[in-house]
Amino acid sequence: VFVPKSLSLSSLSIPPRVINAGKSQHNEDQACCEVVVVDRRCSPRCNPVPKECTEEDLCFHYWGLFDGHAGSGAAVMASKLLHLHICDQLRDLVDILQDSSPPPLCLPGILPSDALPRFHLEKAVSHESLVIGAIENAFKRMDEQIERERMTRLVAGGCCALAVVYLLGKVYVANAGDSRAIIIRNGEIIPMSREFTPETERQRLQFLGFLRPELLGNEFTHLEFPRRIQHKELGKKMLYRDQNMNGWAYKRIEEDDLKFPLIYGEGKKARVMATIGVTRGLGDHDLKVYNSNIHIKPFLSSPVSRQVRVYDLTQYEHCPDDVLVLGTDGLWDVTNDREVADLVVRSRGVLKERGWRLPNDKLGQAAPGRGTATVGMGPGPGGAQGPPDQLPASPTRGVRNPGT
Amino acid sequence: VFVPKSLSLSSLSIPPRVINAGKSQHNEDQACCEVVVVDRRCSPRCNPVPKECTEEDLCFHYWGLFDGHAGSGAAVMASKLLHLHICDQLRDLVDILQDSSPPPLCLPGILPSDALPRFHLEKAVSHESLVIGAIENAFKRMDEQIERERMTRLVAGGCCALAVVYLLGKVYVANAGDSRAIIIRNGEIIPMSREFTPETERQRLQFLGFLRPELLGNEFTHLEFPRRIQHKELGKKMLYRDQNMNGWAYKRIEEDDLKFPLIYGEGKKARVMATIGVTRGLGDHDLKVYNSNIHIKPFLSSPVSRQVRVYDLTQYEHCPDDVLVLGTDGLWDVTNDREVADLVVRSRGVLKERGWRLPNDKLGQAAPGRGTATVGMGPGPGGAQGPPDQLPASPTRGVRNPGT
Repeated sequence: VFVPKSLSLSSLSIPPRVINAGKSQHNEDQACCEVVVVDRRCSPRCNPVPKECTEEDLCFHYWGLFDGHAGSGAAVMASKLLHLHICDQLRDLVDILQDSSPPPLCLPGILPSDALPRFHLEKAVSHESLVIGAIENAFKRMDEQIERERMTRLVAGGCCALAVVYLLGKVYVANAGDSRAIIIRNGEIIPMSREFTPETERQRLQFLGFLRPELLGNEFTHLEFPRRIQHKELGKKMLYRDQNMNGWAYKRIEEDDLKFPLIYGEGKKARVMATIGVTRGLGDHDLKVYNSNIHIKPFLSSPVSRQVRVYDLTQYEHCPDDVLVLGTDGLWDVTNDREVADLVVRSRGVLKERGWRLPNDKLGQAAPGRGTATVGMGPGPGGAQGPPDQLPASPTRGVRNPGT
Repeated sequence: VFVPKSLSLSSLSIPPRVINAGKSQHNEDQACCEVVVVDRRCSPRCNPVPKECTEEDLCFHYWGLFDGHAGSGAAVMASKLLHLHICDQLRDLVDILQDSSPPPLCLPGILPSDALPRFHLEKAVSHESLVIGAIENAFKRMDEQIERERMTRLVAGGCCALAVVYLLGKVYVANAGDSRAIIIRNGEIIPMSREFTPETERQRLQFLGFLRPELLGNEFTHLEFPRRIQHKELGKKMLYRDQNMNGWAYKRIEEDDLKFPLIYGEGKKARVMATIGVTRGLGDHDLKVYNSNIHIKPFLSSPVSRQVRVYDLTQYEHCPDDVLVLGTDGLWDVTNDREVADLVVRSRGVLKERGWRLPNDKLGQAAPGRGTATVGMGPGPGGAQGPPDQLPASPTRGVRNPGT
């Protein structure tokens, strides 16, 4: 369990720490914040000695929140390594991102004389979409590493992953799971993620079950019914939803409809294959339906295993009360965006006087032991009014190659 | 080609007609508007004689817009039959929709004494979602009928289908393709559909190609590249997007990447398998990639072949200038929602004085021969201020069974 903490970008001179409230020694939830220097691919691969971030360097600020389940292994591993995977994916892009001209489509580039007339149809690709692609692939590599090393490193369970990268003036929020990030700007709430649950992803999951019925192991049906069907109801008509329906219709009940529905239950009780209530994340490679040999992982990843939203910090004016809040479902289940916004703004005042831990009991009552992190977006206490990238960013961290 | 026409719900006493501007005798685009009486399933199946819509009847108003391609067959067939399929899907629901209690989950219902304690987990299903389900299934049945009868009835090509059902105070807008519906209420624009194109549906299509590579016929790759790759670029690094990516990243070019991309081109030039620029619709069952045996239909339907949006007319106050506008891509390619809203409001004035055809040349210049229909949502010329369902609705139509 870690308690709410506040961290201004400008206050990164205080070493970023994840504070554990001490409810348990081993916590399934984890968090991480770092300042990462991205070395070029061609430079020596590892720099284990912390390195200052100079003006020539490509640096990013990073916050990650990992809501573990069925063990802490995946959350711990992701909290220690996901930012290094992001760094690794950015290595090829150091020069490209720092150059204002459009990214080359092909590397090494072709000579201009040889190029232009031939390709009349070329798609323009932005710098921003390269960062998004890097973060997306970093999630994929992280998941592959967990799969590869789960036996040797005893990586148990899975986790939702919510990661924030602040790079070159923009905030990138990537989400896989049911955590949530919001920006509070001048009291206004800006959603920076969406949740992935059996209810929000019903059609994707049903479509996969429909296309690949072998994944259902002859025990589940991809159709949804509003309740379990009894055997004696065979031949009657029952409401159902197929993978290509938003509405409901009646169908005559057949033998096959007596199987358990792939998606079943409502709200927080909704489950995939009666097992898991979150539909994207890292880990869970060994997760099976109870007492069966049916794997659940195929349903947890594709087609889009994470989603990245972008917020351009330079486009808005921010005040000291503006914050980015990251919270797991434990927080959002018992409160809402508005209440959290009010709470954070109130507690920031307390924070300045008393330090990291909140004397304000409100969150403790509302969400005991539920993961939250807030990141200040306004100018620092003594800082000038300006975008955070103009503020001193330290300490920095050398970056190792995350793979083994 | 049919010219813009205006039609108030209250003016349905003038027989609804689709006006063809006469540019060609056989037009690939079609439209339809009807008032349909839904007979119970148990009543005699066909009532070819037009029947008045009485207070006990379940009636709906219907407008359809069908943008045909590769022949007019599918558009003509859909314009004559889709509303009958919708009617057929609603037959089982006549009593349920007119009863205010929640729809029964199972038919025939179980006795109350036998039911309650057993099913502690029951999902509530709304009347609205039954209508959505009926419309969704009607689109499916329509497409199946086109497939079944395309040889005997010489049904050529395919079509986008945009259908509006006004039933029990609510407007349901169903869309399959790249047509668009907007409501203009007091000058404000309310989008009632989204377009389905290779660009908006890239990830769905790539996911299907990824899961079912056999559909790509060894000639296409599900990866997207920003331009065609030359053979001599093998081994270089090229930007790409996979099915689970929104951003771009570099990959080393392999032999397989030299295949033609499943999705290629930008904006209006974007195509699926270098063939079709719209990704959902009716028909196209025989559509193949040029000079090959690769079918395109599997990519045009699943997982969600149409989308239904609901607008509750009773929740808003409407003035006589409020309209629902249906337009094909021919209209939206050359203008935008705002311009159309202004044009429609202006032309409604002209219309009252001069009749159906517009003397205003603006649309003719902007969108020559492009399909548009507008439906008035305000009170009729001599009508009282009240929701349209209180206005006299006639003439009515007997409904035949659409299937054969």
